This record gives sequence, structure tokens and C-alpha cells, in this order.
Amino acid sequence: MTALTPPSRTTLRVRYAETDRMDVVYYANFLVWFEIARVELLRQLGFDYKKMETEDEIMLPVVDVACRYKAPAHYDDQIVIETRIAAIRTSMLKFSYEVYRAGDPAEDGSLTLGKLLASGETTHVIVGYGMQKTVLPEKYARVIRAKLGLSPEDEEA
Amino acid sequence: MTALTPPSRTTLRVRYAETDRMDVVYYANFLVWFEIARVELLRQLGFDYKKMETEDEIMLPVVDVACRYKAPAHYDDQIVIETRIAAIRTSMLKFSYEVYRAGDPAEDGSLTLGKLLASGETTHVIVGYGMQKTVLPEKYARVIRAKLGLSPEDEEA
Amino acid sequence: MTALTPPSRTTLRVRYAETDRMDVVYYANFLVWFEIARVELLRQLGFDYKKMETEDEIMLPVVDVACRYKAPAHYDDQIVIETRIAAIRTSMLKFSYEVYRAGDPAEDGSLTLGKLLASGETTHVIVGYGMQKTVLPEKYARVIRAKLGLSPEDEEA
Amino acid sequence: MTALTPPSRTTLRVRYAETDRMDVVYYANFLVWFEIARVELLRQLGFDYKKMETEDEIMLPVVDVACRYKAPAHYDDQIVIETRIAAIRTSMLKFSYEVYRAGDPAEDGSLTLGKLLASGETTHVIVGYGMQKTVLPEKYARVIRAKLGLSPEDEEA
Repeated sequence: MTALTPPSRTTLRVRYAETDRMDVVYYANFLVWFEIARVELLRQLGFDYKKMETEDEIMLPVVDVACRYKAPAHYDDQIVIETRIAAIRTSMLKFSYEVYRAGDPAEDGSLTLGKLLASGETTHVIVGYGMQKTVLPEKYARVIRAKLGLSPEDEEA
Repeated sequence: MTALTPPSRTTLRVRYAETDRMDVVYYANFLVWFEIARVELLRQLGFDYKKMETEDEIMLPVVDVACRYKAPAHYDDQIVIETRIAAIRTSMLKFSYEVYRAGDPAEDGSLTLGKLLASGETTHVIVGYGMQKTVLPEKYARVIRAKLGLSPEDEEA
Repeated sequence: MTALTPPSRTTLRVRYAETDRMDVVYYANFLVWFEIARVELLRQLGFDYKKMETEDEIMLPVVDVACRYKAPAHYDDQIVIETRIAAIRTSMLKFSYEVYRAGDPAEDGSLTLGKLLASGETTHVIVGYGMQKTVLPEKYARVIRAKLGLSPEDEEA
Repeated sequence: MTALTPPSRTTLRVRYAETDRMDVVYYANFLVWFEIARVELLRQLGFDYKKMETEDEIMLPVVDVACRYKAPAHYDDQIVIETRIAAIRTSMLKFSYEVYRAGDPAEDGSLTLGKLLASGETTHVIVGYGMQKTVLPEKYARVIRAKLGLSPEDEEA
């Protein structure tokens, strides 16, 4: 079902600092990109992750990450990340990511996808400041469920 | 079988630069620690990863990583990483990692393991300088198979 | 004289990974931003730093950096970096940087500068692949001198 | 005077993640090493920087850094950093650093210094949690003055 939801798109350019002596982006940096991409997805849903932390006093630490690397990213590449919310539970969120090199711009100048470089997922629990588990506030859960075409009953605890 | 092999141990201390505003180690840094740990494991087997790259002209890029985070690491924590070779194929190597906070030293002053913070795996392909797939030189494969108690026939292509 | 040259502007958003447990951007990351800013300045002059490395076989390693921190940068801040070429010699380039938090957008929606967070300089030598000193190719030097309103005689060796 | 004080020594090994496509350590990482070195210097004086932050509620943000790069550091190099307290004021501390590649071990197995790779300084102000300026608690200032052979009158405000 989530595969039908249009993804959020984030673009970035590879920094010199992100490369290593193999002349490719060091593998841990893809996780930094995942973080940028999921914050942008939240922003596109109308959420401000910084305010979620400072005003709602919830944090979304990662409990699980997986990444499969298909092709290297190089210095100065334009990168496009497509991000989706892959699952929502009362106190868990899962995001999926596809990292592409940008292709040649379309005739109308718009961005196109080139080679798929990596894909991955992150799973997050919802915690309060003391790292104790809590639930995702309904104001966020409602928007995400609507985005995914889910009803509240679809969430498993 | 590999579970019976004693792991390699690497220790490090959490750097200020590795923390984030949540006052814990940023999640991507565990992958940096995995890399330190697997190079130390290779060193303990008598291999010098830098020479593998410069003299044997092979590289071990990561094609797959997974990490499960159990508890946060904090600034200045002593960290102990236990690393094992989890699988060997003619052109693939897989490592597994367990990341612990160091416990109180034993009576004889030796290191003990405290809380398990994370566990993970990385899968690597063997490639040459042009990123084309190649095979792990036999001088390395032999040592690893001996370590794992494997015979050459145990390797699947 | 260089102070009269309009600077190049680069914008970026503070990444979670760039913060530390003091809840501010870790100080070394300003040097990463300097690098992004000087590559953007070069791009705005019509140069592609990646091609300078791969086609002209020159590199610009940093031999000297200084940074003065005035106020902290925080997670998710919009950052504006103003960059200038501060000096050019036959085999040396010097850049200066001012790092601002973005201000409220102007009435026409354009970017404004908020608080000055840091200022700094980097000095670079021109080297070939073997790290031996060389000279900046004239095609680059000409454009930079024009930008700075300098004649070739103004360059000291 | 401070030049006569024996420096603190810290050793580390260059991580793959610290290299860049020029096959050298990326320049910003020297500032990460400076941080490791000054925390080790404080530890050797009997101070625990983490406790300074959490128990004394003081922090030492950097207000000024300079670094001069003499020669590149490479992957897997053993690095030795010599660190000194270069100045102390009632609410300011200054450290100086020399970064060496380790030389061949001495006959007795002890560490020797090889090539000087970089030198630098960081200046820190003493602040409380709200980033307001405060003074270095006397229990720390006393030890540092003794180390430097200074009397309290030598400190300028």
C-alpha cells in the first residue's frame, strides 16, 4: 500500500568531506543522508522535527537501520533521495529510502532520477526526554495515516 | 559454527564529535566503529588492510549493512567491540559486530563487557581498483577458513 | 580591495549529524562548510573543482585555516556563507568566509543575513597528483584576477 | 614559559572514515583530533571533562582555532599529538597542539615522534549551561597554574 504513496524527494550534493580514499562516499554517510531525507519528508507533511523535539518533547531515535549499496556515489554528484513512511505503529515509525544519482534534467528542466545507488530502511521508536517509550502524538499520527490511506484501526500496537 | 570462534576485540572511547544534540552517539558513527573493528580483526589475523588495498590491489566495499541499536552510547564511554567473520565466499566476506559499553575492570585489571549497545553485520564484496568483482587471494582465504574451521569446499561461490 | 568584490553566497541547513551534546554545531563542521562554500564560489566563477582535480590534475590542499566563532549554530538553522577570494599568488589561493544564520526573508522573498556566527580564512597551495607544488593554470588565474580587479603584475610569487 | 612544560601525549590511528578522495586525512578532522588531545591532557591533570560539564555545569566552547598543515596524514597512520596549555585567564583557556606521525619505536619499545604533520591552537571561553561567561572553578585553575609554574597574579582578567 505504501508503495502507491508518492515519495518525498530531497536533493543534495556530495561533499568532499563525505568521500574516502576509495574515491567514493564513505558508507556511513548514507545514514546521514537518510536523516536529512526523513526530516524533509516530515517537513513536507507540515511537521518541524526540531519542534517535535523541543515543544512536544518527543524524540525519534533509530532502533534499526539497514542499507544495501548498489553503486558508489562520487564527489560533487547531485543526489536525489526518495523517502516514504513504510509503517506506523502507536510508538514506532518506519521510513524507507532510495538514493539515486540525479539524471540529466528533463526538457522542462525538472529533475530526473539516474542510477539507483542505495536503498534502505530505518525504524524509530517514539521516546520522551528520559528515553522512555511514549506514543506519537495524535496530531502527527492522523496526518501520517491520511497520507498512507490508513485508518486508526490499521495500526498495530 | 562461527559462534564458537573467539571474537576479535577492539576498544575505543567516544569522541565529543561523535555525539549529537540528543546527548548520545549519532547513529551513523556505529558504522565508523564497525570499520575500525573489522580492520582490527584483520590485523589480529595478520593482515594489513592498507596493504591489501595498495599491494594486492583489492578493496572490500560494503554492499550491505544492518545495525540494531539497543541502548545509547554516551560521550567519553569506553566502548568494546567484539567482531567475527560471519561468512566467507570466494568473492564475499561477512562480518558481525557486538558493541558494548565497557564494564568495571575485573580484579586482575582486565577488561569486562558491560551493557550491549548495538549489534550489526556488514557484507563486503572483493573488488579490484576498477570496482570489478574479483576473488579474495588464497593467502587471506586460507587463514580465514582455518580460523573458522572451514575447508575450501565449505565455501559457496 | 577584495572587500569591494561582491562575495559568493552559499546556503545550507544544519544537519542533525553536525550537532553535538552541547546542542550546537560541533566546531570542526565549520571547516566542512568552508569547503562547500569555496567550491560554490569556484562554480560561480565558472570552474568545476572536480574537473580541476581530474582533468587539470591539480589539487588545492589547505595549508592554513583559522576560524573565529562568534555565536553557536543550531540544528535545522538555515546558514548563509559569504565567501571571497582574499588573495592569489602563482601557486597559492586564499579564501575568506563569513558564516551567518539566515534572517527573516525580505519582502520580495529574498534571503537576508541574520547573526554572524563565525568568520575564517583558508590558504591553499596548488599541487599536482604527487603533492608537488605547481602553478594555478592561467585559465583560472585570469578569471580570478579579473574578479579581483588585479593585473598579473599584482601577483607576488 | 609554557614551552618548558612537558606536553601531554595522545595517540590514535587514522580511520578510513577520516580520509578523503585525495587519499589524505580531510583537514577538518585535525580539529576532532585536537579535541581528543585536550580532553586527554585534562585527564592527565586529573580532570574529567565530562564531569566538568555535568557536575560543575561549565563548558569550554571554542572561540578561536588555527591550524597549519605541514604534511598529509594517511590511512592507518599512527598519530601522536603533543598538547600543552598555552594560556590561562580567569575565564579563558588556550591549548596548543603538535600533530606527528609516529616514528619507528625506540629500542626499548617506546613511542617516538616522526614527521610533524600539523600544529595549531584553540582558545576556549568558560561558560555555563546558558552559554553565559563564567570563571574556571579554582580547583581546576590551581592545578593548571601549578602545572604552568604560574601564580594567581599571573592571570590577566
